[in-house]
Amino acid sequence: MIDFNFSIPTKVLFGAGRLDELKREPLPGRFALVVVSAGKAMRENGYLDRVLEALKHQGIEYLIFDKIRPNPSKADVMEAAQLARDNFCDFVVGVGGSSTIDAAKGAALMARNPGDLWDYIVTGSGKGKPVKNKALPIVAVMTTSGSGTEVNPWMDITDEELHEKIGFGVPSTFPTLSVVDPELMLSVPPMMTVIQGFDAFFHAAEGFIAKIATPISEAFSLQVIRLIYKNLPKVAQDGSDIEARTNVALAGLLSGMVQSTSSCTSEHSMEHALSAYHPELPHGAGVLMISEAYFSFFAKYVPDRFIKMAHMMGEVTDGLPEEEKPYTFVRALHKLKEKCGVDGLKMSDYGIQADEMETLARNAHKTMSNLFAMDRYTLSLQENVDIFKAAYR
Amino acid sequence: MIDFNFSIPTKVLFGAGRLDELKREPLPGRFALVVVSAGKAMRENGYLDRVLEALKHQGIEYLIFDKIRPNPSKADVMEAAQLARDNFCDFVVGVGGSSTIDAAKGAALMARNPGDLWDYIVTGSGKGKPVKNKALPIVAVMTTSGSGTEVNPWMDITDEELHEKIGFGVPSTFPTLSVVDPELMLSVPPMMTVIQGFDAFFHAAEGFIAKIATPISEAFSLQVIRLIYKNLPKVAQDGSDIEARTNVALAGLLSGMVQSTSSCTSEHSMEHALSAYHPELPHGAGVLMISEAYFSFFAKYVPDRFIKMAHMMGEVTDGLPEEEKPYTFVRALHKLKEKCGVDGLKMSDYGIQADEMETLARNAHKTMSNLFAMDRYTLSLQENVDIFKAAYR
Repeated sequence: MIDFNFSIPTKVLFGAGRLDELKREPLPGRFALVVVSAGKAMRENGYLDRVLEALKHQGIEYLIFDKIRPNPSKADVMEAAQLARDNFCDFVVGVGGSSTIDAAKGAALMARNPGDLWDYIVTGSGKGKPVKNKALPIVAVMTTSGSGTEVNPWMDITDEELHEKIGFGVPSTFPTLSVVDPELMLSVPPMMTVIQGFDAFFHAAEGFIAKIATPISEAFSLQVIRLIYKNLPKVAQDGSDIEARTNVALAGLLSGMVQSTSSCTSEHSMEHALSAYHPELPHGAGVLMISEAYFSFFAKYVPDRFIKMAHMMGEVTDGLPEEEKPYTFVRALHKLKEKCGVDGLKMSDYGIQADEMETLARNAHKTMSNLFAMDRYTLSLQENVDIFKAAYR
Repeated sequence: MIDFNFSIPTKVLFGAGRLDELKREPLPGRFALVVVSAGKAMRENGYLDRVLEALKHQGIEYLIFDKIRPNPSKADVMEAAQLARDNFCDFVVGVGGSSTIDAAKGAALMARNPGDLWDYIVTGSGKGKPVKNKALPIVAVMTTSGSGTEVNPWMDITDEELHEKIGFGVPSTFPTLSVVDPELMLSVPPMMTVIQGFDAFFHAAEGFIAKIATPISEAFSLQVIRLIYKNLPKVAQDGSDIEARTNVALAGLLSGMVQSTSSCTSEHSMEHALSAYHPELPHGAGVLMISEAYFSFFAKYVPDRFIKMAHMMGEVTDGLPEEEKPYTFVRALHKLKEKCGVDGLKMSDYGIQADEMETLARNAHKTMSNLFAMDRYTLSLQENVDIFKAAYR
């Protein structure tokens, strides 16, 4: 019988040009910690200035923390939190991609709670203490799309010393307000958008085959799969296609709603292991490399759902032998990768060695055990190693 | 280009038996005004007691206001608000169907704002003053399904002297928490659930053809139409079918999300006119009586969307002349009404006279002008009269 919770308490402004409205939109504080990446893009593209102007227009003071790198580290998050606390900031604004927004969430949480982030994290080496205080309110200005962090409570933070990249969140780490303005994404190299668009695709597909999928998450998942299937190849061909970029940004948003109404599965645990040992690997690329081996393994366990996803990607299954039907989804995925020019991505290109597969599988099981519990078939460690090996090139 | 806001800040507990969790769920205050209907059902079925027990379990004090009738009146809302204010209640719990929840919303708003509800209402005789203060937090325990009030900010309140039934809401009249427990709905007579299920269906269909439909509302709309098409006839046949009732409750919930991400259209303005002059007419029955004439009129203006809705109801349009295709939706609607045993509903059975049609159309245009602005074709007063006349039996 259907049984679920629904809670997505974020207000979203979605659409080309909507960043302009930030100067009129009610904001949840008077003194902001503005979190941006260590790179130059936010300044060079003028995005940071536009956000700062909006804050000034509302008479809001701010401090800037500009040290966030991809796969954001716990050390950076703790430093940002300290800055917010020392200066009595009353909300946090993240301006950037998912790494920046995730770091902003972590800073907002740790600005209001004692100790170390890993005191609260519930898997890996985390101590799993209850979070006492609500995070500072969070405003997310997205300049990329795919992670879904704009409408979910999750942050992926890495402890580089422990080699642990862990997803964590509490109800108060949902952003209060998210601005998703596809115009800001025109400056993202198409290939990066493609990789992040696949991340959205996999959130939707994992959320669709997860044990806890709900009628609401399913509606979102199928729409994400259709949107990515139709629009991601267009962005790959022409990064200035604002309509295709808008549809990919919409898919990213909906994939975040999938994560808030269902869950990722063990594929994401596996990718976190890759990133924990190879922080320079973009998250979406990691998932892409694992994906065909992963979904080939699971096809026989969730055949009906694979067939539905294949249909959203234009596959016809009538007339095929029953046992072949679910694999049409894997075939559709492969074709989509080819169309987007990412079928050649290889682990070895990122320095990942063939003999790491057992270490990676152990790390996945230890640091992100919670997502294995979302699978409809429980992977053994050996099966997990085998999927990594099948994926390795 | 796609451009929309998303905000549904309500936490929902959905599923059979979930009311039991109210005793553990964090609630937004310490002293509740509990709003229930004037009828006996909430007491006789034990629902009110279960809610009061949950409040006691959490050490929460309460007062009861039990005078709400269908098509709740402004006078009752103002009285409940005064009771909450005089006793310093810090939140409102509505236990019942949509009339009760709507009244609870009105009480929560007016407990925190001066003057009369009609000072703030923006259409009809409303003075359209800005609402100064946030409503008290609202908890909704639903015992029927269809209106969607559990996940939208809207309340339909009637000023009986003015003959104005007007929909109104502000961001703070979204419920904080809604419990949708289909077990509670087993005691609702199947025919009442059928009528309310059609209300959900029309919210979805209107939201689908409304000007401001968004990709998110569209996904919800199509799922509501499919769920009602498949499950409402089952409830009509067997009121104890908990699975069908659960799916109808889910449709009701999703139809509320349609109203929060798109809008109703002028069909709902027209029904409000009927209810304003005939308060004993159930809202869903009013919409049902108007529906075939209404959708027949609009079919030619929004053909693609009508065809999509028809497909969700199992209609095949291949091979039909292009201009006939949208009307298959009206045919499917008629068949669904027959299957549910409500094709015989007549205005004349509720004492509505044939010569009222112009008065009703004028009332619809005056009191709910805002929904006419949501139509993709702007109805003239005469066209509105003609639809009423075509619907009259």
